[in-house]
Amino acid sequence: MDGSAAMDMASRIEDALVAAVSAADSAAGGPPRLGQAIRYAIFPAGARVRPRLCLTVALALGDDDPAASNAAAAAIEMLHCASLVHDDLPCFDDATTRRNKPSLHRAFGQREAVLAGDALIAMGFDVIARSAGRNPGRTIALLRCLADALTPPNGIIAGQAWECEPAAELSAYQRAKTGSLFVSAAMAGAIAGGGDPQAWRVLGERLGEAYQIADDIRDVVASQEEIGKPVGRDVALGRPNAVVALGMARAIAIFETLVEQALESIPPCGGRQRLQQLIRAEALRLVPEEYLERAA
Amino acid sequence: MDGSAAMDMASRIEDALVAAVSAADSAAGGPPRLGQAIRYAIFPAGARVRPRLCLTVALALGDDDPAASNAAAAAIEMLHCASLVHDDLPCFDDATTRRNKPSLHRAFGQREAVLAGDALIAMGFDVIARSAGRNPGRTIALLRCLADALTPPNGIIAGQAWECEPAAELSAYQRAKTGSLFVSAAMAGAIAGGGDPQAWRVLGERLGEAYQIADDIRDVVASQEEIGKPVGRDVALGRPNAVVALGMARAIAIFETLVEQALESIPPCGGRQRLQQLIRAEALRLVPEEYLERAA
Repeated sequence: MDGSAAMDMASRIEDALVAAVSAADSAAGGPPRLGQAIRYAIFPAGARVRPRLCLTVALALGDDDPAASNAAAAAIEMLHCASLVHDDLPCFDDATTRRNKPSLHRAFGQREAVLAGDALIAMGFDVIARSAGRNPGRTIALLRCLADALTPPNGIIAGQAWECEPAAELSAYQRAKTGSLFVSAAMAGAIAGGGDPQAWRVLGERLGEAYQIADDIRDVVASQEEIGKPVGRDVALGRPNAVVALGMARAIAIFETLVEQALESIPPCGGRQRLQQLIRAEALRLVPEEYLERAA
Repeated sequence: MDGSAAMDMASRIEDALVAAVSAADSAAGGPPRLGQAIRYAIFPAGARVRPRLCLTVALALGDDDPAASNAAAAAIEMLHCASLVHDDLPCFDDATTRRNKPSLHRAFGQREAVLAGDALIAMGFDVIARSAGRNPGRTIALLRCLADALTPPNGIIAGQAWECEPAAELSAYQRAKTGSLFVSAAMAGAIAGGGDPQAWRVLGERLGEAYQIADDIRDVVASQEEIGKPVGRDVALGRPNAVVALGMARAIAIFETLVEQALESIPPCGGRQRLQQLIRAEALRLVPEEYLERAA
């Protein structure tokens, strides 16, 4: 590992996000409350699961363009935060709490929530465009990858829209709503690291599915304090939940199979073994330990 | 003028928009109502003032990369439509009518309106990224130009956010809310045509200011049918209006001065004279004829 690779991953992500939102600060001349709302949506850090996946893949490929990987990781988190802010709006989930604090529209009002989400989408593309340097081809590929993660037919906006359709197919919904940003995180990490993004698609898909099931498990068993948002929402809102549908033991078994399939899918590269260790450790943190032991 | 330049500008814009939204069609596998909502936001055509400005500038510079100019024009219109859809939401203007039909949230509901706006922002960046060909440098410059048009401190999202601030400076508000997309339209046309975008900034600024005043005039004197949305909204919503503040004669005089300054600012280029004619004709259509004659 070179110097940049050894640098603490969490610091890289937070530093990239701080730099990305600085243009929205009131010091730059923008509206002060909008700048505060944008910061509120991003900080303090959530689990940063998606940008960590992105950087981890780039590092496994050698991370020869750290500016590109940092921008990709920051952009993916900004798009994720934008989707949380808009999904929490009263016309969707009407969530009161997010990351252990009031949801953005509760703290700043609906108008600032709509605008902060809009700004984060545009700023996500901007941070990639501004990272363009000696590899303009990578920059453009990253932008397309991010757009796929958001737009119809398969992006997270389409995923959220399936909730509003009279007839929605569950797998298309989950693939778009949760899977798309995981796929993009893995593929963007590959692009930033100079690899073939298609070779990393299955890793993102399987981790997205595993994350969806882990989320279902936490919705049933975790406390609100642990996950920073209300629990039991799936049942309350009539949304599909794998634990409710299949039982806990079966849900845990599927989760573990998906994680193994994700690890197997990793293409040959210098950092493959280390990457497998990192991803296994990250994945196991998603589910309360006692449930994994019970299922083992 | 070469073949592509002679091609009817309106068809170029509509064709580019049709191509840009095809990925959101249900045939592509996306949620059908979201696809319908996205089309509803864009078609049938409004005045297309901004994409016409963009293409007109590119043509004046020779339009040597029509794919880039078409993408830039389509993207600018998509971002404009996104801002209209979100500005019309109940938490902002609560508009019932837009372009002589129900506003998007009245026709499809608030959830589809939030998502269609989000999708149009992302698709605006996507259409530029997908147009990348032999000039990746232009593609990246176009993406940055679009991002500036949207994001804080000076983009339209910041402009809308000034409406939510306890203390807003009127000129910063109008520059961001109306001016930013005109500036980007002119600069994006210059980038797509291989010119220096900074040389075209003043054209966009003056036309944006002229358009703002023309909008104030129409809000006072036009019928709802003529402008496709309710009139008298500025007074009703307590928003600043140049006619109300300065009187009609003074507003018309300022409008005409701004158009002249815009025409003078056009940098030397092969199509300068033709561009001046086109822009003068477009600008004069913004204000009811009898008012221009009265002021002359």
